[in-house]
Amino acid sequence: MSYYIGVDIGGTNIKVGVVDEAGRIVGEADCPTGADRPQEVVLKDILKAVEDAISAASGVSRADIRAVGVGSPGAVDSEAGVVLYNYNLGWRDFAIGPLMSKALGLPVRLENDANAAALGEVVAGSARGASSAMVITLGTGVGSGFVIDGAIWTGYNSAACEFGHMVIAYGGRPCTCGRRGCFEAYASATGLINMTKEAMEAHPNSGLAELARREGTVSGHTPFAAADAGDPVAQRVVDEYIGYLACGLGNLINGLQPEVISIGGGIGKQGERLLVPLRRKVEEETFGERREGEKMTRLVSCTLGYKAGLIGAAMAARR
Amino acid sequence: MSYYIGVDIGGTNIKVGVVDEAGRIVGEADCPTGADRPQEVVLKDILKAVEDAISAASGVSRADIRAVGVGSPGAVDSEAGVVLYNYNLGWRDFAIGPLMSKALGLPVRLENDANAAALGEVVAGSARGASSAMVITLGTGVGSGFVIDGAIWTGYNSAACEFGHMVIAYGGRPCTCGRRGCFEAYASATGLINMTKEAMEAHPNSGLAELARREGTVSGHTPFAAADAGDPVAQRVVDEYIGYLACGLGNLINGLQPEVISIGGGIGKQGERLLVPLRRKVEEETFGERREGEKMTRLVSCTLGYKAGLIGAAMAARR
Repeated sequence: MSYYIGVDIGGTNIKVGVVDEAGRIVGEADCPTGADRPQEVVLKDILKAVEDAISAASGVSRADIRAVGVGSPGAVDSEAGVVLYNYNLGWRDFAIGPLMSKALGLPVRLENDANAAALGEVVAGSARGASSAMVITLGTGVGSGFVIDGAIWTGYNSAACEFGHMVIAYGGRPCTCGRRGCFEAYASATGLINMTKEAMEAHPNSGLAELARREGTVSGHTPFAAADAGDPVAQRVVDEYIGYLACGLGNLINGLQPEVISIGGGIGKQGERLLVPLRRKVEEETFGERREGEKMTRLVSCTLGYKAGLIGAAMAARR
Repeated sequence: MSYYIGVDIGGTNIKVGVVDEAGRIVGEADCPTGADRPQEVVLKDILKAVEDAISAASGVSRADIRAVGVGSPGAVDSEAGVVLYNYNLGWRDFAIGPLMSKALGLPVRLENDANAAALGEVVAGSARGASSAMVITLGTGVGSGFVIDGAIWTGYNSAACEFGHMVIAYGGRPCTCGRRGCFEAYASATGLINMTKEAMEAHPNSGLAELARREGTVSGHTPFAAADAGDPVAQRVVDEYIGYLACGLGNLINGLQPEVISIGGGIGKQGERLLVPLRRKVEEETFGERREGEKMTRLVSCTLGYKAGLIGAAMAARR
């Protein structure tokens, strides 16, 4: 049997898994990221976690491992295996691919983490078998990955799929990237929380504001919960949020018409609560007529959770 | 030698060409579209133009023709060879592929015309040899085509690449498609003419307004000419236009990172007059750092003009 190692680098933890040909995880390990430490120290921990994951995979020996895939946030050069820069981790020119390859004696493939997660969902999750699929993760930011015929679309310079930094509201809300009006500034959990806080300030006696006070915090879940409890202010926030989300997804569908778009991340956990009104709104936003039997992009929820990035990184190494 | 027929269906005329393997046109013919006539009458004229084009190609006999490619505006089903609907031509469910195939005894490939034009520019024009390229035509609308490794990206349902209907200004100018704030509503020649007319009304004594009165008309060329003559009102229109255009192109680059974006259509004829400030603005709009030697999408002008659609349709038939 052939196995692949998947490494998913997160802000807090690095997850490592041994993945079989079908995209199943057969052994796992993890370690803290500790991104502020010297690169060689981080690397040493990753290598240790790789060995731990192999030990945890019963019936798998080191000789069964064919390659290693690494998913990293930030701008990566997949050809060279270098994390060019990542503002959150403070990394710059981290040649993680060549360094790991040398240490392990295995080929190492580096991908952007969102792209890797998209591949994971296509190989083994919500978009399994789709000829083309896009994964949109609605978390702190908006991550996106686009997979065509089982391969991650990385563009000319392996920097593609920053669809979160697609302007949908010219001159609108400032985005962390320096542009204004990015999809991410509206459709991320952060965007939804900002809209929620603004609504709470404008309507301090609303059910929304009350719920937030009771819970002592505002999360992406708050407006959905308050809307479900019947608060019209919260419902307006949800509607507004879904309007922006549908706008960006409508852009992607008009432009690329993937077979599937899978929604993940914190907000994606709303599942059908989000997807039912979202599908209706997206249909209004997409070009063309609705005809009997017309092939339409399917909007679904991601199913692999954090495992998508790990499985996808491993599967990227398989190619 | 193998040759291919390219058919480019326009609002007024249908152009037909015999194209060699290298994408060179070796014989041409055309006929009026007359789209309001019955489909079988239109078809008859196209078939006649095909025979005329073959006759016009010296040294080419009918037996040298391997396949036919047709580029049509509107929504097309490439698999079935059917123009699903086209509002401008008033066509609906025109099975042009099977009908032409039967009449000519040759395989026929149907593509959206903007997609075909993109392929033409990649095979034989401005994006020759690019691993991935996007062609954006700035005319009455904004056409777009995306070519990956020599193949047109048509998406799951062959309706992809309507990037003109990507919202860049949420709730903004109404678009012909029913959405508001589409890229097309700002970056098309129509969008520029609208901005120009608004500026003329607000500044009736401007050089821009004077030029338009003298010429008796407003075209996409008017604001560029008035700006070049030193009128600040016209310069502001040009700057505003380039801002919107750069916004949409920045979205496409952040998302897809094609090797080349070729700009065509009426406004594309401005060439470097448009591209020099546009490149500067796009650089501000794109994600990431500018680093020495970093691979960047090249912004160039289309070089094939109307021949792009014809050559591209023929080359689509080659595959």
